[in-house]
Amino acid sequence: MTRADVQELLERRERLLGPGNPLFYDDPVHLVRGEGVWLHGDDGTRYLDCYNNVPCVGHCHPRVVEALCVQAGTLNTHTRYLHENILDYAENLLAKFDDKLDRLALACTGSEANDLAMRVARVNTGANGFICTNATYHGNTTAVSQLNSIFEPIGGYGEHIRMVSWPDAYRAPYDLEGEALAEHYAAEVAAAIESLANSESGFAGMLVCPIFANEGLPGIPGGYLSKVVELVHEAGGVFIADEVQSGFGRTGKWWGYQQGGIVPDIVTLGKPMGAGHPISGVVARGELLDNYRRHEMYFNTFGGNPVSCAVAMAVIDVIDDEGLVENAAEVGRYVLQGFTELKSRYELIGDVRGSGLFFGIDLVADRESKTPAAAKAAEIVNRMRHKGVLMSKIGEHDNVLKLRPPLCFSKANADLLLERLDEVLASL
Amino acid sequence: MTRADVQELLERRERLLGPGNPLFYDDPVHLVRGEGVWLHGDDGTRYLDCYNNVPCVGHCHPRVVEALCVQAGTLNTHTRYLHENILDYAENLLAKFDDKLDRLALACTGSEANDLAMRVARVNTGANGFICTNATYHGNTTAVSQLNSIFEPIGGYGEHIRMVSWPDAYRAPYDLEGEALAEHYAAEVAAAIESLANSESGFAGMLVCPIFANEGLPGIPGGYLSKVVELVHEAGGVFIADEVQSGFGRTGKWWGYQQGGIVPDIVTLGKPMGAGHPISGVVARGELLDNYRRHEMYFNTFGGNPVSCAVAMAVIDVIDDEGLVENAAEVGRYVLQGFTELKSRYELIGDVRGSGLFFGIDLVADRESKTPAAAKAAEIVNRMRHKGVLMSKIGEHDNVLKLRPPLCFSKANADLLLERLDEVLASL
Repeated sequence: MTRADVQELLERRERLLGPGNPLFYDDPVHLVRGEGVWLHGDDGTRYLDCYNNVPCVGHCHPRVVEALCVQAGTLNTHTRYLHENILDYAENLLAKFDDKLDRLALACTGSEANDLAMRVARVNTGANGFICTNATYHGNTTAVSQLNSIFEPIGGYGEHIRMVSWPDAYRAPYDLEGEALAEHYAAEVAAAIESLANSESGFAGMLVCPIFANEGLPGIPGGYLSKVVELVHEAGGVFIADEVQSGFGRTGKWWGYQQGGIVPDIVTLGKPMGAGHPISGVVARGELLDNYRRHEMYFNTFGGNPVSCAVAMAVIDVIDDEGLVENAAEVGRYVLQGFTELKSRYELIGDVRGSGLFFGIDLVADRESKTPAAAKAAEIVNRMRHKGVLMSKIGEHDNVLKLRPPLCFSKANADLLLERLDEVLASL
Repeated sequence: MTRADVQELLERRERLLGPGNPLFYDDPVHLVRGEGVWLHGDDGTRYLDCYNNVPCVGHCHPRVVEALCVQAGTLNTHTRYLHENILDYAENLLAKFDDKLDRLALACTGSEANDLAMRVARVNTGANGFICTNATYHGNTTAVSQLNSIFEPIGGYGEHIRMVSWPDAYRAPYDLEGEALAEHYAAEVAAAIESLANSESGFAGMLVCPIFANEGLPGIPGGYLSKVVELVHEAGGVFIADEVQSGFGRTGKWWGYQQGGIVPDIVTLGKPMGAGHPISGVVARGELLDNYRRHEMYFNTFGGNPVSCAVAMAVIDVIDDEGLVENAAEVGRYVLQGFTELKSRYELIGDVRGSGLFFGIDLVADRESKTPAAAKAAEIVNRMRHKGVLMSKIGEHDNVLKLRPPLCFSKANADLLLERLDEVLASL
């Protein structure tokens, strides 16, 4: 595609969708096809996808596409009629969780799941106040926007929101480490709980991504999550794990919360759940969701329809049959070793973090000051795109390279990624 | 399926999804297949679908299923890469609207669309207050739940909500009709606007279904909508038409607002947009959506993906190519004549209303008092189900039979519906 053709697409976007629709790369990518870990541009370029977690089983996985087509050609209705798919799926999905998490509500997007989870916490606590971190994003509904510390919501933040520092073992401005650092961050949560409990809002709960993905995927000081869950429970609150990014094997375990050795009261699911098909869910301790349903009728027209459930079922089956959780753990370790080796050669790399196939590479002006090198991150992402590797950046300071390939990512794919990244780092 | 099998499905539902998940009919229907206007039960029963508006082009329409399968097997990504589908779809969709409505944002559910539309109105007015009617439902997010007058939201209604009587030309307790009645109802809106304007919330807008579907599909006193739009605009507010039910040809015109002879500032779309595939949208005057985007980043992971847009495009194409808007108008008139004939024979039928293929049959204890006959409505719905016709009930008093078949409903289908309804009415 010529530059003029790209320009035409950009103009149509602006005319039809308006300005300000986010787009990746200085030189945007125009895609026409996807397969496994590969995305194909209209000009024949093949890109190694190191960014997209939604197509968790790989782009256009034939078993997922087949499940979609067969059910879409057979029946697609809402859940006010009886159908096995939603029940079979619920059984298979819940079997992946701790026994206490035994009830499922289905919706279409992660935002809807978080919106619903907040309401479940509210009705079960009679309180309204939530704690989130100070560098995060959880979705796009009006209620969930209140938890988006990286974008101020329209009308500003309500008095029911308290933001705490995300736990950061790398750049924390404290002369602490390990358990002492965990205690330090947990103390912030304790203070926020007290502040909410003494306010008109009261304390309903805490909602965080258990691996703090948007915060920059930090090394979490040991024991932080279990301390925080304990504090939340002591105060009568509900702990919600937003697993929209960390779930479905991403971290080398089925759920991100398992990395932290905790069991949340509510888990929210989204992105990879249908490998691109819009399905999301709230998994909760039964009494919480049941009590919610006694107070409010929740119905979602598309949520839990036979097509969505057939697709989501195929996703679980593929993850299991192809051993993708194990693959994420194994290939993830291999990639992390590679990044660590690059760190030994490039001063720009201050910290390398991650679990499973989710990585953060924290770029710094120098390793002493740890000053975030955001411009360098942008430069690398754009150069990698021109070398046929798609990735992005994230974090409070926008200086953390974010890599999150489909779970079928192989060691050969990893070698290509590491080779290209080495070239780009050398070219800076 | 035996009664024991149904019982097993019900028990699994309760165990996995919890109690309180809504289900139709005293004797729930277990469906296995859909085609056109027909739904098939597991026991071989064929049901005439007179309820489902979501599969607007008919269940499992081959062109829609094919568009879904082809694109799902080719590429499914978010909109941070360039792709033609979203642009081609936006162009085709916007061409169906008044020229002033020239910008589109895509999401996955009607709830998300209404949630977003409220925020667009808020940022453009700097105000927070909304007017809705006193017997409606607009969706399931926390913010949209505030407009659900038929279910009190958790935590109760905020001070930013004002509910006005829905315009009812049949049961209004006023000795008024025509324009005088319209003026009467519009005066309630004027008072609500004044009340909000003088409150801390301020007046942001009014959000209604332009055919007041959930209210019971009333005969709207002539000129009511244009009076109301004028009042909203005079007060600097935004008029939002929730076309989740009334859109896409349902009323015999492309949009329900065209029935009222108005042009809204924002239109929200959902249910039939993807014939069951989760896609929704906000169509707005460009300056409103563009101004919103300058204040808040809106991104929806699944919204506007190539698969959703391919499906939604096929839906528009089928509606056009099969003349379904015209069919809705023509067959709709035929059905309405039939209902009117039934009314002449059954005292139970107090009023027959509708436009296109969307009907309300208002049941009354007697025509003098017009006392709503809710139990009779439930009885008819359940008896019709056993005669192989699926329909439901709606309205402030739950006494209005609600019929809303796929838009490919034929006169032969209508004859069957009328025959069965006649039998059931005779059997009461």
